[in-house]
Amino acid sequence: MSNIAPMASRALAAWRQLIMLLALLFLDAAVARQCFWPGQAPDDAGCLSWRVMVEANNARGWRTVPAQCVGYVKGYMTRGQYLRDLAGVMEQASDYADQVDAGADGLDAWVFDIDDTCLSNLPYYETKQFGAYDPSAFKAWASKEACPGIPPVLGLFTALLDKGFKVFLLSGRDEETLGPCTTGNLEAEGFSGTPEYRGQSSSVFKSAMRKQLVDEGYRIRGNVGDQWSDLQGDCVGDRVFKIPNPMYFVP
Amino acid sequence: MSNIAPMASRALAAWRQLIMLLALLFLDAAVARQCFWPGQAPDDAGCLSWRVMVEANNARGWRTVPAQCVGYVKGYMTRGQYLRDLAGVMEQASDYADQVDAGADGLDAWVFDIDDTCLSNLPYYETKQFGAYDPSAFKAWASKEACPGIPPVLGLFTALLDKGFKVFLLSGRDEETLGPCTTGNLEAEGFSGTPEYRGQSSSVFKSAMRKQLVDEGYRIRGNVGDQWSDLQGDCVGDRVFKIPNPMYFVP
Repeated sequence: MSNIAPMASRALAAWRQLIMLLALLFLDAAVARQCFWPGQAPDDAGCLSWRVMVEANNARGWRTVPAQCVGYVKGYMTRGQYLRDLAGVMEQASDYADQVDAGADGLDAWVFDIDDTCLSNLPYYETKQFGAYDPSAFKAWASKEACPGIPPVLGLFTALLDKGFKVFLLSGRDEETLGPCTTGNLEAEGFSGTPEYRGQSSSVFKSAMRKQLVDEGYRIRGNVGDQWSDLQGDCVGDRVFKIPNPMYFVP
Repeated sequence: MSNIAPMASRALAAWRQLIMLLALLFLDAAVARQCFWPGQAPDDAGCLSWRVMVEANNARGWRTVPAQCVGYVKGYMTRGQYLRDLAGVMEQASDYADQVDAGADGLDAWVFDIDDTCLSNLPYYETKQFGAYDPSAFKAWASKEACPGIPPVLGLFTALLDKGFKVFLLSGRDEETLGPCTTGNLEAEGFSGTPEYRGQSSSVFKSAMRKQLVDEGYRIRGNVGDQWSDLQGDCVGDRVFKIPNPMYFVP
């Protein structure tokens, strides 16, 4: 019995330290992540602002993801919000497509961009830490035919074909050097059926490609792309859908 | 001494309960707010998706804020992210304006929308819980001349005037019934100097108003508005800037 008091005292001290630790952890979680005050850590809030500016076409001409937002962009792309956003856009596109009849003449068409609309280059951009564009490195990556397909977009693609639309896949990838591997990659990821792949070097703008389709008699009912430059210019189509992409900007 | 053991035992039990409570609070904060897993509560994530779709012009024709997002929109508008987003857009506009010279002929102009671009109707929409548009109630609100100015936009407005641009304030508010009170409200909030206020009933679209300016010889160098319908159509200007607005949609 002579040891009870000091033992109890040491036990109480230990519990007290544990409580302090838990309280600090709790407060740190609550304050640093603003658990009780809706919002996000300061960098995240600024990076969210930036990301929304990209999607709203307010931020243009940027060469790389801001340095303080590289981690944010990676988190956005890989932890669920990107897929959630994609699903939302595809739902909008699908609802719109349900209101449009594909004529029996087979001339109602949609145009889809390829890179980061149908096929994902996220694995490549992660290795580059979302840095400045490196044409030869990108070409090496694209040549592997290893770009994963983007499932929600494949879902829309398939549904449009089923409804009787033509779907043209328009790309800035050079047809001569990357045509076969791009076609192979697209088909391996399910973008097959009656796709039309029209790769052009970057000197031929998407406007010209769409104008050519219109000259051939097609009616562009929808246009899906991850860059505002896919969705502006001539013959953009009856309605455009912006796929989220905070990884890079194509003028 | 005969009371030490039971007292120590009760103290230990109390500390243990307190630790359990703190641990539960911590876990609840961590899991429910995803403190260790970046992201947001489920409704917030979906509502963020929706808000970004509004800003990217992917979501159109909606009559009211989705019911599950009313709280989210209120939080967005009042807890800092809206102001942060506004500041970002104004910085983009200001950087762009720095690259444009206002000619000595006084014909370089910007167009600004008024409602929720220059003047805020947030107090009104809060009382309506961001519900469906109520023309008579809005008119009563607007007639009070109590719309607060939106400071970051006032900053851009003032800077543009200082640079020698004309700034035309274009509005869907009817000039006959709301003209004087709108002018009074604008001037009281600092939107004075050489503004041009051209209120038109909603049957006259902003495109027609901008075309009229172009016919008068003006060159529209920039266009600032909270609705995509402010920024599309004819004579949109050399560059447009979308002010965030998840409160309502104007076709």
